[in-house]
Amino acid sequence: GGRRHAMAPSPVRRGWWTAEAEGEDYGFVIDGRGPFPDPRSRWQPDGVHGLSRVYDHGAFAWTDGAWRGRPLAGGILYELHVGTFTRDGTFDAAVERLDHLVALGVDAVELMPVAAFPGRHGWGYDGVHLWAVHDPYGGPDGLKRFVDACHRRGLAVVLDVVYNHLGPSGNYLGEYGPYFTEAHRTPWGPAVNLDRPGSDEVRAFIVENALMWLRDYHLDGLRLDAVHALSDERALHILEELAVAVDALRAPTGRELFVVAESDLGDPRLVTSREAGGYGLDAQWNDDFHHALHAALTGERQGYYCDFGSMGALAKTLRGAFFHDGTWSTFRGRSHGRPVDRLRTPGHRFAAFLQNHDQVGNRATGDRISATLSPDLLKVGAGLLLTSPFTPMLFMGEEWGATTPWRFFTDHQEPDLARAVSEGRRREFATHGWASEDVPDPQDPETYRRSVLDWTEPSRGGHRELLDWYRDLIALRRSCPELTDARLTEVEVEHDESWIVVYRGSVRVAANLGGDPVRLPDGALLL
Amino acid sequence: GGRRHAMAPSPVRRGWWTAEAEGEDYGFVIDGRGPFPDPRSRWQPDGVHGLSRVYDHGAFAWTDGAWRGRPLAGGILYELHVGTFTRDGTFDAAVERLDHLVALGVDAVELMPVAAFPGRHGWGYDGVHLWAVHDPYGGPDGLKRFVDACHRRGLAVVLDVVYNHLGPSGNYLGEYGPYFTEAHRTPWGPAVNLDRPGSDEVRAFIVENALMWLRDYHLDGLRLDAVHALSDERALHILEELAVAVDALRAPTGRELFVVAESDLGDPRLVTSREAGGYGLDAQWNDDFHHALHAALTGERQGYYCDFGSMGALAKTLRGAFFHDGTWSTFRGRSHGRPVDRLRTPGHRFAAFLQNHDQVGNRATGDRISATLSPDLLKVGAGLLLTSPFTPMLFMGEEWGATTPWRFFTDHQEPDLARAVSEGRRREFATHGWASEDVPDPQDPETYRRSVLDWTEPSRGGHRELLDWYRDLIALRRSCPELTDARLTEVEVEHDESWIVVYRGSVRVAANLGGDPVRLPDGALLL
Repeated sequence: GGRRHAMAPSPVRRGWWTAEAEGEDYGFVIDGRGPFPDPRSRWQPDGVHGLSRVYDHGAFAWTDGAWRGRPLAGGILYELHVGTFTRDGTFDAAVERLDHLVALGVDAVELMPVAAFPGRHGWGYDGVHLWAVHDPYGGPDGLKRFVDACHRRGLAVVLDVVYNHLGPSGNYLGEYGPYFTEAHRTPWGPAVNLDRPGSDEVRAFIVENALMWLRDYHLDGLRLDAVHALSDERALHILEELAVAVDALRAPTGRELFVVAESDLGDPRLVTSREAGGYGLDAQWNDDFHHALHAALTGERQGYYCDFGSMGALAKTLRGAFFHDGTWSTFRGRSHGRPVDRLRTPGHRFAAFLQNHDQVGNRATGDRISATLSPDLLKVGAGLLLTSPFTPMLFMGEEWGATTPWRFFTDHQEPDLARAVSEGRRREFATHGWASEDVPDPQDPETYRRSVLDWTEPSRGGHRELLDWYRDLIALRRSCPELTDARLTEVEVEHDESWIVVYRGSVRVAANLGGDPVRLPDGALLL
Repeated sequence: GGRRHAMAPSPVRRGWWTAEAEGEDYGFVIDGRGPFPDPRSRWQPDGVHGLSRVYDHGAFAWTDGAWRGRPLAGGILYELHVGTFTRDGTFDAAVERLDHLVALGVDAVELMPVAAFPGRHGWGYDGVHLWAVHDPYGGPDGLKRFVDACHRRGLAVVLDVVYNHLGPSGNYLGEYGPYFTEAHRTPWGPAVNLDRPGSDEVRAFIVENALMWLRDYHLDGLRLDAVHALSDERALHILEELAVAVDALRAPTGRELFVVAESDLGDPRLVTSREAGGYGLDAQWNDDFHHALHAALTGERQGYYCDFGSMGALAKTLRGAFFHDGTWSTFRGRSHGRPVDRLRTPGHRFAAFLQNHDQVGNRATGDRISATLSPDLLKVGAGLLLTSPFTPMLFMGEEWGATTPWRFFTDHQEPDLARAVSEGRRREFATHGWASEDVPDPQDPETYRRSVLDWTEPSRGGHRELLDWYRDLIALRRSCPELTDARLTEVEVEHDESWIVVYRGSVRVAANLGGDPVRLPDGALLL
């Protein structure tokens, strides 16, 4: 059904086609195939394969006119997955829990991806409509209500955006142009085409998408997923191009805006200023700190933890951000990284965490670190995180030691794809010695349901005690300028294999990770 | 035949195996296959597939003890292919012609690749033994005699080295380790593995090879082939790692050493200092200047010349080195490049040329620009080159307008490969409208022979006149400091579509590229 309108090449923008039409739902027929949804669809009310719906960004009644954003420096992030933050799994339900975050004392909510992805439930990293908000979460207006509600409470909102690949179902970009290239390969197949013929519009697709979130959804920052999978050999790297574009949006919006990259490159260039030859991003994730802290607390040495484990590794990341600064990585089978210039690079340019969605969810059973550690060691971990020179980030539920796991779950509708995902997950963990029946099936709705937070927990017993610990630490960090001092050169560390003391100006953070009391070099007894 | 010795893992270097043995010729048997030549073979007297021969770098009687090298700044390069520079095609025969270069006034010979490649004749870019000197040229001692002879005459020697791929025949590296990766693809197939597991030793293979040439062969510089095909996502790029290593060799050798990259990246980072976030190479080839000059002189617009042609393009490269500084490239189907910081980047960091082996040899019939241009326009081209703010480079024979073409020739011994190369060449040019019989067969020995310089030419008629013009221009460049002034900000250009005037301090270079006399804005008449 529906009427067809012929399209003609745009006279103003190379490679674009235009037509005038009236109506609400639409798609594009290309060379007789289709209709396909709009690659820049603002709304996919009928799922990723359905028609696109017209949506007017100017219609929403914002109430955050006084909001001016807040700088990343000195802030604390809170990573949140809309689908499992509440039982309803919607933006509106999440709004009901914002007062918990205000009381906790964090500064910004970091939303896991909300771009439309296949099925109802999922992590969101297989998004395929990068300009549309996942409709089961509440669609475009739902996200706006959430952002508006956050701003009213003084909370900034950061969005996780995925530009390094698209999901395996509902990706119609290839019908429209050379969005992918075989010149580079990623874990998900051919790379997004950033540097081959036709790549100008692919880059514009990414940069304009980033600006759309910040401008039209009033977001305060973006978290770029896995930038190491953005292969770009151009003289102007896409990360620098994006940083420049976001920077230029600061003046017209009158708001602080920031971009944080998840990076496995070990490359300080990402957060180095453009004047000094860097890309000028505001921060990057510090996986080295996580791995060093996790390995020291848990004793785990499997997978990428094999490079970590010594207290010296943790001390090194506290002083220099990176553990791998050109050193050998057994996990990678090569040396890795480059030293951070401690004198010129503020610590807040590194987002640090004791847990995050990956570090929990990529474990076979999605068990949180609280399932492994004693309550005391959990507190030690939180203490080292929240007194670090970095930008701390919590993962939803971490603050009360949630007993709910956070598992890998999907909701693929195509039987072949669903089976492939389920079997792939089992096969992956079989190589690490897991029995197939112990690895939750991502497609089983129960796997998703078990991952939903239990909001009766935070008010109960040990959970409440841990929550108080987190609140107190955050309040301490806020009241004590030494703790947010971002000068890495001012961080001093002493340690043995069982204890570590971190000097932050006049503040001394002493942590005993062993089972027995230890006497520190200055004679103090550490329990 | 021969004796077998068991090898054992090295106790000092990860991934290396060692054995003690006596003898001259040797190879390695790996898991029952082989013997294969040594991947770091210093000598392949029996061709690329044969056994390796022991060679002692300490045995040569050097006479260049007083040589201290010479800086690239202010110098002129002369690109030379050993196999076609003389009829004999050897280093020793080339030595006989060095006095011609001294009289011409150039400062450095840039040798096309001499690493052992398959067959007797070839350009050398399909080298497979990167540590051995092509034996038909004279082998390791031959190269040393050549370098020694150059240094005695005050000529520096630069060597073209190819690290971005290996040739299709005689490449046994894959038998020894993960030298290649499918993560990136180049025009020659899987990329050299610079950033994946096992890549530390691949990088060491490259960096130590570079140092070997500079240290053991007393070379003064290296020209890196096609660095845009070196895909490296590490925090320390292989080009920077190499520049650091070469820089460190300057003190122990007490000589000037430099590294020049052939680059299609349009990225000033290559020749930007490391302090400013660059890789710290000494120079890169300036193809943009060539294309702008060639298109302006010849009117050609095919292939990559489609982006050039206006006199404004030539003026832009004279002032800013790059034409593509972020501008649209029709040839590439995307925008390309990044502006050079004119205030901070000296012009000598760009090697410029009117002709080079690629720009001549990659034409269907290998015709030099002298086959197209009038003698007067040839002189105009040479004049604009040799008064430019860049590091000029000549291609052997250019200085007398050699009538010998310089064609693509190979000498593959495997019939299938030979046929594929011949047919590939014909097919490539068929798409540009060339009849198959007009495209010389690379495998035909006549194709190679026709490319040898005719040394009776330079003393004859018009050739002699052009040679005098080149000598005079070079002498003028030497005597006039304004011409070697490398400050790009001091270069001013005026032009119309038929004429161009380049101001180099108090020196004014006026060139009329049209057929008729023109009157310049200041009233002067330009013939």
